[in-house]
Formats: sequence, C-alpha cells, structure tokens
Amino acid sequence: MLIVKKFGGSSVADKERIFNVAKRCAEDYKKGDDVVVVLSAMGKTTDGLIAQAHDINPNPPKREMDMLLATGEQMSVAYMAMALSSMDIPAVSLNAFQVAMHTSSAYMNARLKRIDTERIRNELDARKIVIVTGFQGVNRHDDFTTLGRGGSDTTAVALAAALHADACEIYTDVEGVYTADPRIVPNARKMSEVTYDEMLEFASLGAKVLHNRSVEMAKRYGVQLVVRSSLSYAEGTVVKEETKMEKMIVSGVASDLNTARISVIGVNDEPGIAFKLFNYLAAKNINIDIILQSVARDGRRDIAFTVPKTELHEALAIIDEHKDTFTARSFQYDENVAKVSIIGAGMTSNPGVAAKMFEALYNADINIQMISTSEIRITVLIDENDVARAMRAIHDKFDLGDD
Amino acid sequence: MLIVKKFGGSSVADKERIFNVAKRCAEDYKKGDDVVVVLSAMGKTTDGLIAQAHDINPNPPKREMDMLLATGEQMSVAYMAMALSSMDIPAVSLNAFQVAMHTSSAYMNARLKRIDTERIRNELDARKIVIVTGFQGVNRHDDFTTLGRGGSDTTAVALAAALHADACEIYTDVEGVYTADPRIVPNARKMSEVTYDEMLEFASLGAKVLHNRSVEMAKRYGVQLVVRSSLSYAEGTVVKEETKMEKMIVSGVASDLNTARISVIGVNDEPGIAFKLFNYLAAKNINIDIILQSVARDGRRDIAFTVPKTELHEALAIIDEHKDTFTARSFQYDENVAKVSIIGAGMTSNPGVAAKMFEALYNADINIQMISTSEIRITVLIDENDVARAMRAIHDKFDLGDD
Repeated sequence: MLIVKKFGGSSVADKERIFNVAKRCAEDYKKGDDVVVVLSAMGKTTDGLIAQAHDINPNPPKREMDMLLATGEQMSVAYMAMALSSMDIPAVSLNAFQVAMHTSSAYMNARLKRIDTERIRNELDARKIVIVTGFQGVNRHDDFTTLGRGGSDTTAVALAAALHADACEIYTDVEGVYTADPRIVPNARKMSEVTYDEMLEFASLGAKVLHNRSVEMAKRYGVQLVVRSSLSYAEGTVVKEETKMEKMIVSGVASDLNTARISVIGVNDEPGIAFKLFNYLAAKNINIDIILQSVARDGRRDIAFTVPKTELHEALAIIDEHKDTFTARSFQYDENVAKVSIIGAGMTSNPGVAAKMFEALYNADINIQMISTSEIRITVLIDENDVARAMRAIHDKFDLGDD
Repeated sequence: MLIVKKFGGSSVADKERIFNVAKRCAEDYKKGDDVVVVLSAMGKTTDGLIAQAHDINPNPPKREMDMLLATGEQMSVAYMAMALSSMDIPAVSLNAFQVAMHTSSAYMNARLKRIDTERIRNELDARKIVIVTGFQGVNRHDDFTTLGRGGSDTTAVALAAALHADACEIYTDVEGVYTADPRIVPNARKMSEVTYDEMLEFASLGAKVLHNRSVEMAKRYGVQLVVRSSLSYAEGTVVKEETKMEKMIVSGVASDLNTARISVIGVNDEPGIAFKLFNYLAAKNINIDIILQSVARDGRRDIAFTVPKTELHEALAIIDEHKDTFTARSFQYDENVAKVSIIGAGMTSNPGVAAKMFEALYNADINIQMISTSEIRITVLIDENDVARAMRAIHDKFDLGDD
C-alpha cells in the first residue's frame, strides 16, 4: 500500500513533535507500506522569513520571496530524514527541484501542473521513506514558486494523485471534521465521512481543516482523503465523492463570523444600478456573498449584501467614491452579523430542510436577516450574538450530535 | 567587464551589512559592469542549523546535512536580491540547482566538477546582478552537496574561471594580505601582490584570508584574485602567477600557534621504526609536519615531529598503544611551541635567506628548536612565548614594514 501523509507546520514545530511524526511514519513503514511524507515549514519559520524580508524590502520581488520561503520546508524535510535515520529507518528528503514539482509561473500563488514521479518511485523501491517539501514548486523558468494558502495540502493531494496512492492522510490538530465546532456545540459528533462538496462548503465557512484548493483537486482526481489527528490514533474523517446510503440529510452546521452587511437604501428602480455597484467592488477584489434586493416601492428599492468583515472598510470607501452613480438615499452597514449554515449532500433531494432549519431558529427566537442557498447548503445571516444558540438549536433539531 | 565578487557570512550578517554589500555591487553595476555575487550563509546561520541537526540526530546522514545547510546560502541570496531590488537594481538569486553547479558525489566535502553558465549569462544579458549561493553544489544523484571549509571562495573562483571573468574579488574583514599579522607586527605592510604559491604558504600558516582549495583552483585556472575589505575602498592584494620583477625576496612572515612537538627518545637504530610510527599516525589522519631525526648514538636515536595542537592527544594515544613497536626509552611532548615562517617566491634563487632569518632570531636571543624548508618557505619551531618578538625581529631584518 502506498500512503501519502501530510503534516502541517505545528506538527513539526520542535524536536519532540518531529519525532512524533517520524514515529507515525515508521509504523506504516514497518507494516510494509510505501510512505511519502509531505511537510510544511516548522512552526513560525515562514512568518520569521517574511518579517525579515519585509524589514529589508517592504515590497520584495515575489520571485525572491518564493526563493526565500522555499528554504522553510527544505529544513523541515532534512530534519525529518535525520530523525528517521536516528531510528534506523532509511529516509530521503526531496525538494521541489528534486521531485520535480512543476507549477505555473505565478510566484507566491502558483498552480501545480505536473509532478515527475520517477525519483520518488526509485527511492520507494529502495525501501526509503520519501519526505517531500510541501507548498513549493518549480516553474518553467527553473525558479522556485509557492502555492499560496493551504499549499502543502495541495502538494499532498497532487502527489497522491500522481503516485496513484492508496491513501492520502491529512494530519491536523483535530480528530477530523465535526458536525459543528465542538467549542460551540459540546455534543458535536465527528463525521466518519463527508463528500468533497460538503467539505468545500465547510471549508468556506471557516472550518479550516482543509483548504478549498486541495479539496477541489482531490475531487477532480478522485483522491480519497482522510483528515485525522497527529496526536491520536482516532479514525478521522474520510472525504470522498459519495458517502453511504444511510447518510444524514444534513451533515453539519458551520458558522462564519468574518462577515458584515452593507445596505444601499432607496436606489432608483432602473436597470444597471446593482450591476455597477458589484462591478466596482469586483474590480477591487472584494468578495460579495449573500445579496438581497427588495421589491421596488415608489420607484425605489434597497440592495443589501455581505462582504468579509476584513474587507468592509475598503468596500465602504469604494461605495462612497461612486455614491452619485447609485442614486441612493443612504448607506448602512452592520458588523455585528454572522453566517450560520447547514451543509449536506442529502439536502437536494429532501424538501423541507430549509423549513426545519427556520423552525429551529424561530423556536430559539432568533431573527433571520438574510438567506442564501446552494445545492448542498442553506445559509442565514443573523446577529452575531445569536450564533452559538443558533448552532445548538439547529444541531439539535437535525439530531446531529452524540447521544 | 565581468566581475565576480564574493562576500563571506559576516559581510551579510544583518540588514545593514546586506545593504553595504548591495551598495558595493550596485556601484560596479552602474559603471556598466556585469556583476556576479557569491554569498555565504548569514553570520551564524550555519552553526545554528548544525546545532539543531545534532540535537535531532547526533550522527546525521551527510546527505541530509547538505540538504539542510544548503538553505543557509539560499536565504542570503534571496535577501540580497530583495535589498538590490529596493535600490531599483534588477537582481536575481540562483541556488546550485539553478546555476547548475555540478560536483562530485561526496557529501559535506564535494569537489566542483563543472558549472553551467547559460542561466547566469542569460540573466547578465538581461542586465541583472546575479547572486549565487556559495559553498553548495549538486551531484549526479540530483542531491545538494557542500564543498567543505572555504567552500564559498572556491565557488567564486570556479565561477570566475567558467565565466572567464575579468576580475574575481574576495571580500574579507581585512584590507588584504599583510607582510605579517598587524596585531603582532604593528608596522606590517599590506602587500599589493602575492603569488599563488606564496598565498598557499600564508594560508597554511594561519593567515586565513583565503582557503587553500580556492587558491589551488585559482592557480590551476589562472584566475587572478583580489583580496580586499568589504568595509573600505582600499586596493587590496592581488593574487596571481607572477609578481613584479622588483619583487621582494621575502614577502612576509607568518606564524602558527596550533602546533605541538612530540619526541620519541632512544629508539633502536634499525630500519622501519620511523616508517611504522608515521604510518600509525597517518592511518588516523594525524597531520605530521616538521620531522627531525637525530644522529644515532650507542645504537639509538631520537625522533621528533610536530602535530597540530588540536590533534596532540589523539597522536599521543596512538603512540602509547603501539609503544612496544617503537622500542623507545621515553616519550615527551611540548605544547608551548609555535611555528614562525618566512615566505617568498624570490627565496629559491637567493642564497643566504635562511642565514639572515636565523641571525635575526639569534640577535633576539630566541632558540630554534626545529627547522623545515620548502622552495618558498623557511619555518622554525620556537617557544610560543617568543612568537611576537621573533616575528618583529624577522620582519625588521628583511625590511618588510612601512617606514
């Protein structure tokens, strides 16, 4: 069996944790499995390199940033090979040049294009554990690139696809994907399985166990993932295309506090106003989410939408700059809002799911400000002070928790 | 003009020094020169990496050590490119894979075999300053190697040879090569020129401005070197094949305190004793230097020789282990000795140089314990407390100093 195992920066932050990871890898190796390990840079290494770079040049060339950052994972993989060697396990570390990991040219945000597998296969045939630098690649100019956020997860998934691995295990500091954040919903249950699409919705709603890019790649290449803890031997959550027949209609409840509502009040009821508004925001890469447009009254209507809280001030500045275009009577915004969503692949074929969710919120006396739905997700915008109560109410209503 | 400039770890130890180096490089660039910069790892970076590696594995695989250490120079070159970029000077950093620097397979002590120049030439043609990682290479297994001590100097010389550079400047924290250590001989004079062979003798005697391997390579490929300071614009010392006709007979005086004398007293006057003794030491890589064998008296003779002080105890242990073989009456050793040498290519054709040196020592009332000579060097072993006086006396006798 060929296993790709990915460990993040906190899993290799010090000597003790490095040996913990080495031990996990050695266990599979001793069972006779072929083991490929993907590592991120240790702990805060990358942050330290970025800080020093910005001290030298506040606006460093991206090409040189990637040259610099690539050293972080190279250190991790060398140390891991040394740790395994001290346990008498043959191991070899490889960076993006040595693999090679071919990417697009875009520095700091490259996309993996092709992975050569010959070197890795040769090292595996020589019965070595192969330790590969995550996050980095090489572009057609023979320069280091990095993959952007969640890059090491993407490296692991791409390697699993290229090597036709039997398993791709993503190790984190939680035991898997839960029906809700256990800090908010104490009886939240770890899911044994979740579909790629559900995982994508969970990730976009702040359940940061897997980055969307890696899930999208896993879906595209049919790589079955397991999200599990580096600190326990619990089973983890399998992320795959189809889940079991007896699957719950709703998989879980997720929340996102990084949201703010902007309302543009009393714009003329004429074509193109909304288009112009969202066009200005899109030009500045502001992410618009839920949009609500009221029915026109007296030739005027209101447009409300949400943006990430972190982009609120930029969005307001853009709107202010173009306010004459919008013919609006006033602008309002509210930072004290949050999104709560139910996610589940079973939803599409089950009517009444939304009604059940709204009923739970009504019973809990929670006001719904806006609603947005997708095939496998229903999201409501509520007061952020109601988030915990809302999640518990919904979680109970759909009977998602442990007994 | 194509210039290769090499800066050591202390020259790039912090932001201020990085910008000092960037400024020096930018000056040549702005004059229209093509500039290739070779850098070592910053300050104590390499020591830190080695310490962390040994904490994880006291006996780390050499292949993984090189993988780890290679990150040090990669950080330096990336930071330098960022510094130059902030000064609006186009620059690009390259590691050993990107150049590529082909070496032998021996990890931690590889030899440079071939340097591809295409990438560097292309970047120079695009009017960029090219910043290359010193000390590291890539072997035929596509693995990082490192060149061992003085490796970055060797990288610079090899690059200068491969690129047919017009100049190869080695920057240090002194202004060049002196007729003697200025801390010992206050009126020591910076030499404007020195031959490769003289430089080799100076280096082997502790004047650590250039490592022997780099001088040997410069000699082999006829690369003219300039040793100069990164902190001043003084002319420096040119290292080349032939120096001017009016060359001094003696170039300079050097000392080496890392030496100890071992005496094996009263061995049988029979063939093979000395051979066996030095064979045992050679088998353990103990460097023997000056050897003195007394005339036999009563069928017995004494053998004395020097070893580096750092290898004294190992040498004594080896001798003790085999003492029966040597038929010796006793062993003695003396750590309080030092070597003082005069070096000069003009010596070979000038008789009486040795006599003049000995006269200087006699006048200073300094006892000579042992003598060794080569084509361009005369070395005496003396009491280490006499070193400073001996150097001044010899320096004066040959009139080497400033007025």
